Amino acid sequence: MNERIKRLREKMAEEKLSAYIITSYENYRYFSGFTGSNCALVILKDDCFALTDGRYDIQIREQAPGFSHVIISRSMHEHIAELIPCGARVGYETHTITDFMLRNIKSQSENSEFVPCPDFGEEIRAVKDDGEISAIHRAVNCSDEALAALIPQITRGMTERQAAALLEYEMAKRGSEKAAFSTIAASGLHSALPHAEPQNNEIADNSLFTLDFGATINGYCSDITRTLIIGNPARELQELWELVFDVQQKCIQRVTPGMRASELDEYQRSLFAEHGMEKHVMHSLGHGVGLAIHEAPTVSRRSDTILQKNMVITIEPGLYIENLGGVRIEDTVLVTADGAEVLTKAPHRINIKL
Amino acid sequence: MNERIKRLREKMAEEKLSAYIITSYENYRYFSGFTGSNCALVILKDDCFALTDGRYDIQIREQAPGFSHVIISRSMHEHIAELIPCGARVGYETHTITDFMLRNIKSQSENSEFVPCPDFGEEIRAVKDDGEISAIHRAVNCSDEALAALIPQITRGMTERQAAALLEYEMAKRGSEKAAFSTIAASGLHSALPHAEPQNNEIADNSLFTLDFGATINGYCSDITRTLIIGNPARELQELWELVFDVQQKCIQRVTPGMRASELDEYQRSLFAEHGMEKHVMHSLGHGVGLAIHEAPTVSRRSDTILQKNMVITIEPGLYIENLGGVRIEDTVLVTADGAEVLTKAPHRINIKL
Repeated sequence: MNERIKRLREKMAEEKLSAYIITSYENYRYFSGFTGSNCALVILKDDCFALTDGRYDIQIREQAPGFSHVIISRSMHEHIAELIPCGARVGYETHTITDFMLRNIKSQSENSEFVPCPDFGEEIRAVKDDGEISAIHRAVNCSDEALAALIPQITRGMTERQAAALLEYEMAKRGSEKAAFSTIAASGLHSALPHAEPQNNEIADNSLFTLDFGATINGYCSDITRTLIIGNPARELQELWELVFDVQQKCIQRVTPGMRASELDEYQRSLFAEHGMEKHVMHSLGHGVGLAIHEAPTVSRRSDTILQKNMVITIEPGLYIENLGGVRIEDTVLVTADGAEVLTKAPHRINIKL
Repeated sequence: MNERIKRLREKMAEEKLSAYIITSYENYRYFSGFTGSNCALVILKDDCFALTDGRYDIQIREQAPGFSHVIISRSMHEHIAELIPCGARVGYETHTITDFMLRNIKSQSENSEFVPCPDFGEEIRAVKDDGEISAIHRAVNCSDEALAALIPQITRGMTERQAAALLEYEMAKRGSEKAAFSTIAASGLHSALPHAEPQNNEIADNSLFTLDFGATINGYCSDITRTLIIGNPARELQELWELVFDVQQKCIQRVTPGMRASELDEYQRSLFAEHGMEKHVMHSLGHGVGLAIHEAPTVSRRSDTILQKNMVITIEPGLYIENLGGVRIEDTVLVTADGAEVLTKAPHRINIKL
């Protein structure tokens, strides 16, 4: 039995569950190894089932050899319900399972009790093992190298969208399975939108240009943001950049196992407040990265997570000022036994002459 | 009031709903125009609310001007619950809303009645308007042109993954916002997996090479599959290719408004059965394409949809034989007043000499 399933069964035992249904992509991949797009797992005390459809008949046998395989011939929920023992106490992933799936499983398992559970899979995934850290490290290197390859290709007349396309291609050439998320490329005033979609407008001179992107290796993501300094931006923008960079570095130095993640977010806000800039903070400081681009732990004011060794998080403070522009600087960071290792190696300060 | 909301309110009236909650990406984008990653809509008889978080404060005002905007400061479900009038009969998207979201909205709206609904948004989206057809057409042209650009670049030693990366880049260069889904690139024996992920293995000579990919323009997807003939494959593979191509063309000729989608799927199976190949059919004939890469109508045996003018569907028969290889050929097709217009213009028969 694999170590991950063992940890899941410990959580099942704590909640007195005799069955647990997994429906989210990252969790079925994490526990079974199966990478196809349609799957559910049913974990019992003494058996593990992996269900998929006929498209993946060969693939699931290759990727999830430790599981009993079910190739569904009717709706997924019917097959799941059939695997649940009569009278079971059944946990499920309340944050991701759909109402439709759950109602239908319940209606066909009338003698069982259903218990909404926090995302046990995500909780277990928050602390990474060596293989996972290695995959994330490779994904980080891949996005770092892609950025280095992009920089000399940025020329006058290039659009946000062209830059994003080229960056994603440079990652793919270096082994990224796919962009970890849709690349954000935002120039000039557009950079005041924290999650701007790339447009067909040209990269503005004497301005800031924010790129937020990530690679995927073996399913594991990296996440990096750089705000490039194009030409000679207005002093106000340059000061904004320096402030965000300073706060980002201070936050990274604060990372320690045993601290509350919420403290880190409060810390960035207090640093920005010293400059009267707190009202321009539009998102929390960071988030865990792994099979999902956003996963536990959340690094926000509302987080109750205690940071632990081998968690991987982003540190990404940002300031956004409408009709002026924005800055965000983000590294992917491994929590170590006594602090943090910054996995991202790309330089922070990148000056471009168009 | 926009025409789309009007149609939604007609469906609400049929079900005697006084409120309707929209939580799926494609639907909130379709009804509001908002393209950010976090949103819900609450549609009442006389008001429409669009909710998002602080990252999208500027963007939602720009993109969804007809809506009342709520920038959430607590959990999304709390804000949704506050907008629901006391005693309302509330419809929701049972196929996409999570159990967590729904349970929490319900627990804070105790005097309201909640009604699981089929996906009204997806039903309305199944028949496209002119602007949508134009966007899909542009996405189809984009993927066609990207394929034409890729073909001369395929050379000995290129891996599946390199081909997929290059194809996605060629789409992005031509304006695709993102790949409509992760490109499938499967060479040789690997092509027997209908949904194979690209690997680092080289494209095999004297073999088949399947590429399944799509572009996105204004959020609208294209979907195309070509099985390329590399060198001089075994006669068995060439016959497989000819059979799938023949079935694909016959299915397209059968498309007529007013027919059941299920008839089309039964037709492909009957054609393959004439050659004793039905057991190698691993998926249904096709699916609708629009804001989602897979949406209504399903073109499967179980579909109860009647095809209508201005539906856009894929026709993509495939055969998959373990330890031999597979073939799939797919076009994106517009249902017209009296038949079908094949939007995809890429040639079907593509021979490559490595």
